Amino acid sequence: MSDSSPSSGRIYTAALIVIGDEILSGRTQDKNISQVALWLGIQGIRLREVRVVPDVTEAIVEAVNTLRARNDYLFTTGGIGPTHDDITVDAIAEAVGVEVIVHPEARTILEGYYETRGGLTEARLRMARVPEGADLIPNRYTGAPGIRFENVFIMAGVPSITAGMLDALSGTLEGGAPLLSETVGCWVQESEVATLLGDTEKAHPTCQIGSYPFWREGRTGANFVVRSTDADDLAACTRALVAALETLGKPAVFGGI
Amino acid sequence: MSDSSPSSGRIYTAALIVIGDEILSGRTQDKNISQVALWLGIQGIRLREVRVVPDVTEAIVEAVNTLRARNDYLFTTGGIGPTHDDITVDAIAEAVGVEVIVHPEARTILEGYYETRGGLTEARLRMARVPEGADLIPNRYTGAPGIRFENVFIMAGVPSITAGMLDALSGTLEGGAPLLSETVGCWVQESEVATLLGDTEKAHPTCQIGSYPFWREGRTGANFVVRSTDADDLAACTRALVAALETLGKPAVFGGI
Repeated sequence: MSDSSPSSGRIYTAALIVIGDEILSGRTQDKNISQVALWLGIQGIRLREVRVVPDVTEAIVEAVNTLRARNDYLFTTGGIGPTHDDITVDAIAEAVGVEVIVHPEARTILEGYYETRGGLTEARLRMARVPEGADLIPNRYTGAPGIRFENVFIMAGVPSITAGMLDALSGTLEGGAPLLSETVGCWVQESEVATLLGDTEKAHPTCQIGSYPFWREGRTGANFVVRSTDADDLAACTRALVAALETLGKPAVFGGI
Repeated sequence: MSDSSPSSGRIYTAALIVIGDEILSGRTQDKNISQVALWLGIQGIRLREVRVVPDVTEAIVEAVNTLRARNDYLFTTGGIGPTHDDITVDAIAEAVGVEVIVHPEARTILEGYYETRGGLTEARLRMARVPEGADLIPNRYTGAPGIRFENVFIMAGVPSITAGMLDALSGTLEGGAPLLSETVGCWVQESEVATLLGDTEKAHPTCQIGSYPFWREGRTGANFVVRSTDADDLAACTRALVAALETLGKPAVFGGI
């Protein structure tokens, strides 16, 4: 059994809280869930659950305390700007039971950033506020840093800024074996191969197979995603799936359709 | 005070559970949150919270029971197809404490749909299974219906199919006054107008103002979204915001930038 077998190491999990009325109103299409999910996958950490909550203190507190307790890591996006609707830092400080302070290093960073941009006003200084005891996560774009408090990572709502913060965190978090995946596409109705999929999954206990149908150009197809932390079993399961599809006269397309 | 004032009627809330490993792995960018949110807004129902959960029975059961109890409506997307990873119906039946049965009308619909597509196999018949006592939500595209059980609405994961199901439900759910919104864009750093925004919001108690910064073509700007169920107060707040921005020499752009 290789080191990448799931039985040889524990699974590291994370949760994400997307904070913002603009997502719940439908005005803004969220882009942070998928980028955080993909980044976590590379770190060997599974995104186990996501919640989208409004700009309401009680909603944030409830989600933070539930999710930080049952995951190795908790990420949040949104609500750390300079305006009145940016309540994430205060809500998380309340959740973890500490005061909000101005972080000296964050203040210095913002003083530098705003030196040529009109100076550090009271509103801008809000972006140096952190739960007491927190560390900073660098923001290469707009000065205002992200925040780490214990296992909680507080990031921006703007996806490009969050991307920079994730980049700064790359390789710094302990993870397990990454969840690997292979995609196989096929012009087949998934209902034609439902039994085949279930049987193939059962024969490869480290693997899960997801089935994602689509309709294009008047034809029905599906992509089958095989996931495992065990590279050998993943390859064997994928080969078995392709062979089974071809037995039905349904050629498989590696990488998906 | 008009009928659209929030004090004259209660607020109807909904929650959404997005079910699927493909969202949590980052493979698929969710599109259902924003389309369900926008549709609910038109029905006069607020989307209050969203959870994304994996294809795991316990995770679905926990989310369903928490969210259906504290919202008027609960929607789910994903996991109602014919394959082994489609466990939503069984999980929701477990959550609400009823058996899973084959719905006679769903069976008839599927028999018709598959008459010219290879017939109704055992796998396809899975898509006629519902929690006992449930009603059907029409699916105009692929036969397999959505499901309503009390205040729980079980819909497809594929966004275009979900869109058709939402369309079938339009106007059938009791809602309150729709949350109206106006967007004002401005080439300004939000930190320059943070106090102005907070003061304007405080002067219009039915309104919330959200501030959404952006960076384009080397310039900094922000869109300010004013939300209210009271059309008059919304208009007054928006006018006050525009006037205050212009006092600072920052022209506002109606509809946003």
